[in-house]
Amino acid sequence: MSGEVQKGLEGVVVAESQLSYIDGDEGLLIYRGHDIETLAAEATYEEVLYLLWHGSLPTADELSEFTATMAEERTIDDSVLSTLADLAAADEEPMAALRTATSMLSAADPESDADPADGEATLRKGRRITAKIPTVLAAYQRLRDGDEPVDPREDLSHAGNFLYMLTGAEPDDVAEETLDMALTLHADHGLNASTFASMVVASTLADTYASVTAGVGALSGSLHGGANQDVMETLIEVEESAKDPVEWVTDALDNGRKIPGFGHRVYNVKDPRAVILEEKSRDLGDASGERKWYDHANRIEEYLIEEAGFREKGLAPNVDFYSGTVYYQLGLPVDMFTPIFAMSRVGGWVAHISEQVENNRIFRPRAKYTGEKEAEWVPIEER
Amino acid sequence: MSGEVQKGLEGVVVAESQLSYIDGDEGLLIYRGHDIETLAAEATYEEVLYLLWHGSLPTADELSEFTATMAEERTIDDSVLSTLADLAAADEEPMAALRTATSMLSAADPESDADPADGEATLRKGRRITAKIPTVLAAYQRLRDGDEPVDPREDLSHAGNFLYMLTGAEPDDVAEETLDMALTLHADHGLNASTFASMVVASTLADTYASVTAGVGALSGSLHGGANQDVMETLIEVEESAKDPVEWVTDALDNGRKIPGFGHRVYNVKDPRAVILEEKSRDLGDASGERKWYDHANRIEEYLIEEAGFREKGLAPNVDFYSGTVYYQLGLPVDMFTPIFAMSRVGGWVAHISEQVENNRIFRPRAKYTGEKEAEWVPIEER
Repeated sequence: MSGEVQKGLEGVVVAESQLSYIDGDEGLLIYRGHDIETLAAEATYEEVLYLLWHGSLPTADELSEFTATMAEERTIDDSVLSTLADLAAADEEPMAALRTATSMLSAADPESDADPADGEATLRKGRRITAKIPTVLAAYQRLRDGDEPVDPREDLSHAGNFLYMLTGAEPDDVAEETLDMALTLHADHGLNASTFASMVVASTLADTYASVTAGVGALSGSLHGGANQDVMETLIEVEESAKDPVEWVTDALDNGRKIPGFGHRVYNVKDPRAVILEEKSRDLGDASGERKWYDHANRIEEYLIEEAGFREKGLAPNVDFYSGTVYYQLGLPVDMFTPIFAMSRVGGWVAHISEQVENNRIFRPRAKYTGEKEAEWVPIEER
Repeated sequence: MSGEVQKGLEGVVVAESQLSYIDGDEGLLIYRGHDIETLAAEATYEEVLYLLWHGSLPTADELSEFTATMAEERTIDDSVLSTLADLAAADEEPMAALRTATSMLSAADPESDADPADGEATLRKGRRITAKIPTVLAAYQRLRDGDEPVDPREDLSHAGNFLYMLTGAEPDDVAEETLDMALTLHADHGLNASTFASMVVASTLADTYASVTAGVGALSGSLHGGANQDVMETLIEVEESAKDPVEWVTDALDNGRKIPGFGHRVYNVKDPRAVILEEKSRDLGDASGERKWYDHANRIEEYLIEEAGFREKGLAPNVDFYSGTVYYQLGLPVDMFTPIFAMSRVGGWVAHISEQVENNRIFRPRAKYTGEKEAEWVPIEER
């Protein structure tokens, strides 16, 4: 091994995985052999979780047992609700509240003594966390708004129950299916920074809750999960400027601003998830008769790719560029976009944590030391 | 870059750093040019924090301003105490309680809007976390025992105030100085798993609290910070067996047991921190007239190294082998040993997080995909 510094570990292979495969030149994303387009169109998020965690698509019986178990695990303790209420009173960021609550959930796990090297126990703990995250998020959103949290219902889907807990009303089919599809699209994506963070923590044989909490923390960064919110805020700024979107973006580029939602380390072409979300964004606009959010995004994309040289630079829309307009058209609050990403990606974290502990080696890289090697000790009175 | 899988990233250089340097063949550990023996003997933990965070040893005035600021920052909010009380009632592990509380502390940070890429703001946030961790830990220990938490005092040292909050009484000089020295010894150690986890999270430009929370999570693993507790539990088992320690360890090896506290990826000789802690452990035993914990450890070390072939295998005592006996002789609860490690190592995490964000690239490695690439979609009713 040479001593060359592998900054950001670009291109460095750190694990074997059977979970997801990305072909950045073809714009291909697959989970365990199934392409994302088929999964988005055909599978529910619960089916995708089963596929990621258990290796193959469930039979109808397996899926029904799995979804029933997860539905039973949606409830969170009053102590967690009370901590969320304190965080809401302090106006804490939703991703930080989710991080604290995820960490706190471990206290009520019925398998707190499970062997952290047991991949199956990891999946069960991960399933409980995945079941509870929507409850945490919906409760937090309601507490911030001064409303009482709504208890989860077991008869609704993962996506449908989240929307129900958020509003207190059963969602319509379009909203439920759209959110379900978005959850499927975001569930796994190789060793992105949050997944890798969760694997590093798991590699010490820390508890699953510790590893998932690290994933939540990493996803909150503006270079990672925070980008979908940034895109939507940009589009709102475009709208409020009353300028033509192309004029707005030209001015923004002239002023040295970075346009969020473009470029990805592993794609040289348009992210396949962005293709699906773009279509969904347009459909939602058409259905409501108000296509401006899709139109703004689309005109900005066309201009940047075709005329502003983004294609030549290998910059294409990533998953965040259209997901924001989809969530916004569903009426979801802008600062819940990244938490909704977490609500989906937890499926991938759990799958990778389980793979890591089943075939573990602790992550302990090296730094190139560039500091002093022999400093003189001077007693404090002589400094 | 070849596609070879770098499991555990052994030997892979992922960053430049001016913080600590380890020579595993010479048994050398230095922080910013100062060898660990001199720092352990001459510097307080607060001086070491200043050195790590600000690049050079403080003058008397700088140190006094720094310690005064940190002392003022020791108090934690009632909401955090209330969450700790709930966790204590649920009998949560101390490291898990620390993880949740560390995450929760962000809600009260006065610089919640600071730019996560600002290394100086990171140091200030990290300083507040470092100041508050002893308060969290002491409060949690007291709550678990059914006692009221003791408020921090500003006139005591970092180590002294922790012991005071734990017991409600001012510690004697030996206890305070011994803990202070242990904090210095554990403050930084290159890119160990918890430090690396905190850097991965920071590389997304997540908040400092997210990054430090990941460090706490990683340190809790039995392959990392959990080992000092394992060593002490082993020594207690030796004592309770009423066997000669060499007989006990021979039987244990015959039964395929792993003896904790030996071996380290970066040392081929005895860990310099173990050398210092061994001496301290013996001194504490001599002072109290009860040397059995030191003697048990020492006889086991001699037997394993000299007669059981550990030297030939490159296995030498690591920092965890003697730290447990030191903490135990100070009367500290065994399951607080890893939290005390965290109370020290947070200094290193904060320093590395600040270095990371000042010269950032998001960590996004790759996995070698070993799964299926083309799976057939079968509708659920046909599975």
